[in-house]
Order: sequence, then structure tokens, then C-alpha cells
Amino acid sequence: MIGTVHGVGVGPGSADLMSVRADRLVRGARHIAHFRKAGKPGQARRIVEGMLRADVVEFAMDYPVTTEIPLDDPRYASTLAGFYEGCAAHLRALALGGEDVVVLAEGDPFFYGSFMHLHSRLLPEVPVRIVPGITGMAAAWAASGVPITWGDDVLTVAPATLPEGELVRRIRDTDALVVMKIGQNLKKLQRAVAQAGRQAVLVEYAAMPEERVVPLDSVTSAPYFSIALIHGQGRRP
Amino acid sequence: MIGTVHGVGVGPGSADLMSVRADRLVRGARHIAHFRKAGKPGQARRIVEGMLRADVVEFAMDYPVTTEIPLDDPRYASTLAGFYEGCAAHLRALALGGEDVVVLAEGDPFFYGSFMHLHSRLLPEVPVRIVPGITGMAAAWAASGVPITWGDDVLTVAPATLPEGELVRRIRDTDALVVMKIGQNLKKLQRAVAQAGRQAVLVEYAAMPEERVVPLDSVTSAPYFSIALIHGQGRRP
Repeated sequence: MIGTVHGVGVGPGSADLMSVRADRLVRGARHIAHFRKAGKPGQARRIVEGMLRADVVEFAMDYPVTTEIPLDDPRYASTLAGFYEGCAAHLRALALGGEDVVVLAEGDPFFYGSFMHLHSRLLPEVPVRIVPGITGMAAAWAASGVPITWGDDVLTVAPATLPEGELVRRIRDTDALVVMKIGQNLKKLQRAVAQAGRQAVLVEYAAMPEERVVPLDSVTSAPYFSIALIHGQGRRP
Repeated sequence: MIGTVHGVGVGPGSADLMSVRADRLVRGARHIAHFRKAGKPGQARRIVEGMLRADVVEFAMDYPVTTEIPLDDPRYASTLAGFYEGCAAHLRALALGGEDVVVLAEGDPFFYGSFMHLHSRLLPEVPVRIVPGITGMAAAWAASGVPITWGDDVLTVAPATLPEGELVRRIRDTDALVVMKIGQNLKKLQRAVAQAGRQAVLVEYAAMPEERVVPLDSVTSAPYFSIALIHGQGRRP
């Protein structure tokens, strides 16, 4: 009997924004795995605090690097590839030994995020099941109090890591916009939104206790958990 | 005491893909409201079947028109505006009478969908709270077995109602694509994907018993619950 690896979306930040299916899997799991920055508790693990079995076996996967090496440095890819290989090997061994494993994924497991790098390494040898989750962006637009898309609006989801000119072009060319990965790219994003003649809000810590919604142009820094939104203005009878 | 109207995302189709918060609100609600096509049970209502209180009071909101009048006909907007006004008036009266109401929304309440047309009519008089949900597109990419976005991928969400040339341009200009509202626009979408030189899959009835994933170019019709996907190919160490 081969076990199953479950890639489980635990939602944007609040434990009760996890799906009922995810809640059941997390509470029942003997083996839980989650990513975290070394030395930090990890957001996905924080969400499930208090929900785990008393005899749970946890496998914390500590990123060997986050922002210390530039993304375009070949050492970044090779370091991370080795890391994901090692994590996948551990999960594979558990599954081949007959154990099911729940891998926690913030938001949705197939929408950016790290679980996908395990998924591609586990298949086809190990069965993998995906539980979709509420994305951080859905929590962000709920927090903003304003719908993101109406009628025939086009929505663009873009990382703030794009070059400034590319950001300007995409902001001009969409009805609604979601921008992730803001961090060090905040000033560039602010300039791009202004140059495109649009207004954006910044949602910090959506669905978490520190949740805050502010005009994007009013801030001088953006926490890791922040998402910028431009709301669509489509058809509304 | 004024009651609260809860706009509750009930997720893509399976009751256990509702959030724990939505599950609790639905099971506890004395007043439930939901949209449906006249004469049909309605997808949101189907999802919560078997979950409602014995003494629940249901308010079914029957669309007066779906595809019988073209979207650009002024009668479409005026008919729907009157309909939403009437629905909002009913919910407002309940809330002002001190009752809480749960309005069921397929997927996420602020991502396309009809709840937003009530929301804008209830505010600011009536308190409205939003419970985000798992979107149909997240269930679709989970069903496809392939992540939708990696690394710095740009995702475009577009309705198939766009003109064909516009679809081609947007398909060429994005890494990952989600297309909703396919229905009668299937052939146009198929031509646009081919002209852009991309490959797409069609996910029918994601997270429902009839779920099916097929190449977009292999079908001659698309059910109401179908979403086309082009998966991103971004950075993957």
C-alpha cells in the first residue's frame, strides 16, 4: 500500500477560512509537512496551530535561501532545486512506506507557492491529491470591501518583480489588477500605478489579525503579506 | 438591533470545499437567500443541500432573464436592475427587522457573480460581511492536475465574451490564462487559442461529480460550468 501526499490549501490566514475538507485532513493527519523560513514559525503552520493530532509527526522544510541570493543567480535555482529534491525524497519515502502526508500550503497549492515544486518531483511515483484553497488575493479583495471584477472585466494577476515599464503597460491594459510579491518592489509599483493613471489599494495581512487596507500611495513599506488591488469597474445593472 | 447580511462564498461545487466559516454560517442561518435560474434548483443551493436548519426560511431569487435578452440591450440592464432592487429591498427589510441573512454565492462573492449587485445596494444602510470562497477556477486548475502559475508568471482571467481579436491578443500576452463564460463563445475561443498558438484544456464541472478535463479543441460544446485554462510555464528550480 502506497500512501498519498495531500497538497492542502490552508487558505489566506484565518483557520476558519480553510475548507471543511482541509480542516478534516489537517486534524486527522499523522504526518504534516510545511515550508518555513529557517528560524520562523511559518505562516501555514501558524494557521493550523491547535488543530494537530497529539501524536502528529511534523516535517518542517526550511528554505535554504529566500532573498539572500538574487533570483537570476544560477546558485539560487541550484540551491532550491537541491532543497526541493531533498524534501520530495523524504515525502516519497513516507508514502512508499504506506504513510499519508498532508503538506500545508498557504492559500491555494497550485497558485504560485512552493508545494508545486514537490508535486512535480513526486509524480508519477507517488499519488498526490490537491485540495484547493481560498487565495490570499480573495481575502484581500474581501478585506477591501469592494468587488474585484464585474461583468466582462479582465483581471490581471502580476508579480511586482516585473520591470517597471512592463508593470505600467499591464496596469493600463487591464480592468482589474492584483499585484503580489511587492516587498522590495513597492516604490517601483507605486510609480507604475501613478504613471498608468490608476488608483490602487494595499491590503496588508488579509484575513489575519493585523489586516489593514490603505491607499497604495500612502505607504513607505509593504510587509511580506501584502497585495495591491485595482478594482474593476465593469457592467453593473 | 440591525441584522447583518453575510455574502458567503460556498465554493466551487462540493460542500466540503466550503470554508469552515461558511459551513458554520450556513448551518446556523435562520434566513438563507440564493440566486437561481427560474425553475432550476440553483447551484449554490444545491451545494448546501442537507445542511440547513429545520426552521430555515429560504428566499430564492429567480433571475428574470439570463440569455433571452442580449447583454448590450438596454432592457437587459433595466430588467436586472429592477430585479436586484427588489431582492435588496427584501434583504434590507429583514436586516432592519433585526434578522441576519446568509446569501449564498457560488465560488467567491466578490469575483464576478451576482451577490455584488446586492452588496452595492445594501450599503451603507445595512451591515454586509463577506466570507471569501474557493473560486471555480481554483477547483478547475486543481482538477487539471497541473499548477496554474509559477514564479513570476502573469495570470490573465478573461471572459470568452470578449471580441475574438481581443482574445487572441490577450492569450498571446499572458503566461497563464483562465477563461470563464464560455458557453456560446466556445468556437470563438477555440479559434483564438489556435491563432495564438497555445494549447488549452477545458475543465467541466470542476469539484462536481461530473468533473471532466479535456483538450479545449476536442469539444463541440461547453456546459455552463466550464473553465478553460492555459497553464503557466514560469520559473521552477
